[in-house]
Parts: sequence; structure tokens; C-alpha cells
Amino acid sequence: MTTRIVELRQGILKKNDELARDLRGRFTTAGVLVLNLVSSPGTGKTTFLERTLRDLREGGARVAALVGDLETDNDARRLAASGAPVRQINTHGICHLEAEMVSKHLDGWQLADLDYLFIENVGNLVCPSSYDLGERIRVALLSVTEGEDKPLKYPTLFNSADAAIITKIDLAEPCGFDRETALHNIHEIRPGIKIFEVSAKSGAGMAGWLQYLREQRP
Amino acid sequence: MTTRIVELRQGILKKNDELARDLRGRFTTAGVLVLNLVSSPGTGKTTFLERTLRDLREGGARVAALVGDLETDNDARRLAASGAPVRQINTHGICHLEAEMVSKHLDGWQLADLDYLFIENVGNLVCPSSYDLGERIRVALLSVTEGEDKPLKYPTLFNSADAAIITKIDLAEPCGFDRETALHNIHEIRPGIKIFEVSAKSGAGMAGWLQYLREQRP
Repeated sequence: MTTRIVELRQGILKKNDELARDLRGRFTTAGVLVLNLVSSPGTGKTTFLERTLRDLREGGARVAALVGDLETDNDARRLAASGAPVRQINTHGICHLEAEMVSKHLDGWQLADLDYLFIENVGNLVCPSSYDLGERIRVALLSVTEGEDKPLKYPTLFNSADAAIITKIDLAEPCGFDRETALHNIHEIRPGIKIFEVSAKSGAGMAGWLQYLREQRP
Repeated sequence: MTTRIVELRQGILKKNDELARDLRGRFTTAGVLVLNLVSSPGTGKTTFLERTLRDLREGGARVAALVGDLETDNDARRLAASGAPVRQINTHGICHLEAEMVSKHLDGWQLADLDYLFIENVGNLVCPSSYDLGERIRVALLSVTEGEDKPLKYPTLFNSADAAIITKIDLAEPCGFDRETALHNIHEIRPGIKIFEVSAKSGAGMAGWLQYLREQRP
């Protein structure tokens, strides 16, 4: 039984990797920078993305977002308030996004008309790590409320990320957040990773993040 | 391909259900109340459980815990400080606990010498919902920092839970937690579920939770 499961799992991942490679090719040709945002439920991905979309649009950038959830279109409705084109992907029980779901939800969008496409993954620190969505930048988010040891306990995500965001820094003090330990643990799993410390509520740290996004554009 | 995956998945779940049924029989015979704690990473399961173990032991109860994580034995070491027997289950990449892992880690423990056994699941709001561990009470935890819509976005967990715990209520004000909406959303998914609002830090709400535990004992 185990052998069959491993073979099937490898088959699924191989198919996903092939689709992701095709997607990455399309994104590169279109000149759109694609980011895959992964975190625990409740880290504040949607609030952070709302602010990012709004700030980028105010700077004249053309942005869009896909947002994954098991159920509800709450997040798509929240993000659409930014004025950017947004589509919800409901996975109905599947705990991560896959390249095929992304591909299907791009139908009708002109990628060449976009500067940035954000993909907000299903809230889950484990399973999304195994699924390439064709993104150029994988972003791991961690909030100050979650505990500094998360990078050590969920190493696959942090190890496969290109950037890490520490969110809700406005709550660092009431949460007793130990910043040095958190930074140390992230660097232990992924030495040299770019880390941003932000509050989408107050705007603290957003300028550095937006600057990074501009520098990453093809 | 999809058909084979569904069949395999059903096979795995069926095997897990059979093992869980056996475990439940053993737990009932031994007279130990078993609880399965499920939440997002960072909800504060371990801190809540530390306090619960300590408070129960001070009241003379015999308690033990199993704790699941992909990697590290941080949580087992934290929980062991309570003086209770604790064992870490490292899943090495698997995003949930299964009945077989629980069964293996009970070796050598005399279940009849225990009043309560707590199983802290891997931090994940999705996958653990599908795996019965033989528990009598499934507890879904949600912190005030995570957003009030989580029960709607992860309905399977909340719908299969016997009790819900809202954690970190000491942070409700700085987080702008909307208590009415959170309670409403939990009840919408699971009408009549028992809800406890607690702070393991200040001890608020713990008395009601401990009282509930005593009432649930066989």
C-alpha cells in the first residue's frame, strides 16, 4: 500500500511540476512578477495583501490576485475592494493550491497587461510547500502572535521560501514577541533569506517590501 | 488517476477508522478521557495544554499527553515541565496525526492509571479533521488573533468538533477581536457546540474548562 501511495504522490507532484513549469514560462513571457503567499490561517495574509495591492496601485502598478480557500469567497471580496481584479479559488476540502487550479483561474486575463500577480494560498504551513504554482517568489508569512519556533517546526515551507514576512508587528509588545529568536530561527532554516517586518495596519515596514517588489520585476 | 486516488484515500481513511475504533475501545475500558486538540499553528495549543495539565495535576488528576509536530521535540519538552508523562510524535512531513501513530506511542503506558490523555495534533486546520484518533472529545481551538471567519473557511474541523476554545483572550482588545461575530460563526457551523473563552496566560476562563473536563470523565 505504502509503495503505491508514494508512487501516486510522486505522479501527482510530477504532473504539478510540469504544469508549474509551463505557467512559469507564460508568466516570464508576459513580464508579470508572480508571488505565492503561504502561511498559517490567521497570519494576516489577506490584510497584508489588501494593503500591498492598494499601495502598488497607488504607485501606478497593474496588479491582480488569486486567492485560495477551502470555502467562502470572503477574501476575494475583501481584496476586490482594492480595485484590482481578483478571483477566488475554492478548493472544497483540498488543503493547498495546485498549478492546475491557478491555470484554470487565469482564463480570460491578459497576463501581459499585469505587472504583479499575487497568489494567496490556502492557510496551511505544511501542504502548500510541496506544490509549485509557477511563481517566481515564494513568500512565507509568520505573525508575531504565532510563536518564534514556527520556522523550526515547519522547515519545508521556510526552506523553500524566497522571502519571509513577519506580520502584525504592531502586536509585538502585547504578545511578548521575541524578535531576535524569530529572526535567528528563520535564518537557521534558510540562511540569508530576505526578511520584512511589517504591520499592514499601521503601514510600518511596507515601504521596504514595496521597494523589494519593484526590484524583483523582470 | 483521480479514481485511483479517491479509492486509495478511502482505503487509508477506512484503515484509520478501524484502528481508531480499537483505540476508543481501549480508552473506554481503561476509563481514560481522551481529547484531540486541533488548531492552526500558533493558536496556543501548547501553552493552553501546559496550563491544563498543571491545573489538573494540582487538582489530583492523573494526566498524560502526546504531542504531534513535523519536526522538533520543543513541545514535548515544554509540556513535560508540568510533571506529566509526555511523548513527542514527529511526523516528518505528514501534516496530521493518524491513529496508528497514536497507538505506537502508547506502548508501555498503563492507560488504566490515567484520568485524562490529551493529544495535541499537528498545527493544521484542514487535514487533521479527516483522521479519527479514537478520542472521545475533539477540541477545535481558535485564537483572537486569527480572525473571526476561520470557522466558515475551515468548516470541516469546526463541524466535527465537540468543543471550541477561543484562546489568547487577553489579546482581544489590541487585536480588535469581534467576539459576537466569532461566536456567531462557530455556532453557524456547529449549532450548540460548547465554547470556552480562555487566556492560558492570565488564567481567565480556565475554571469553566476544567469543570467541563471533570464532567466529561466516564
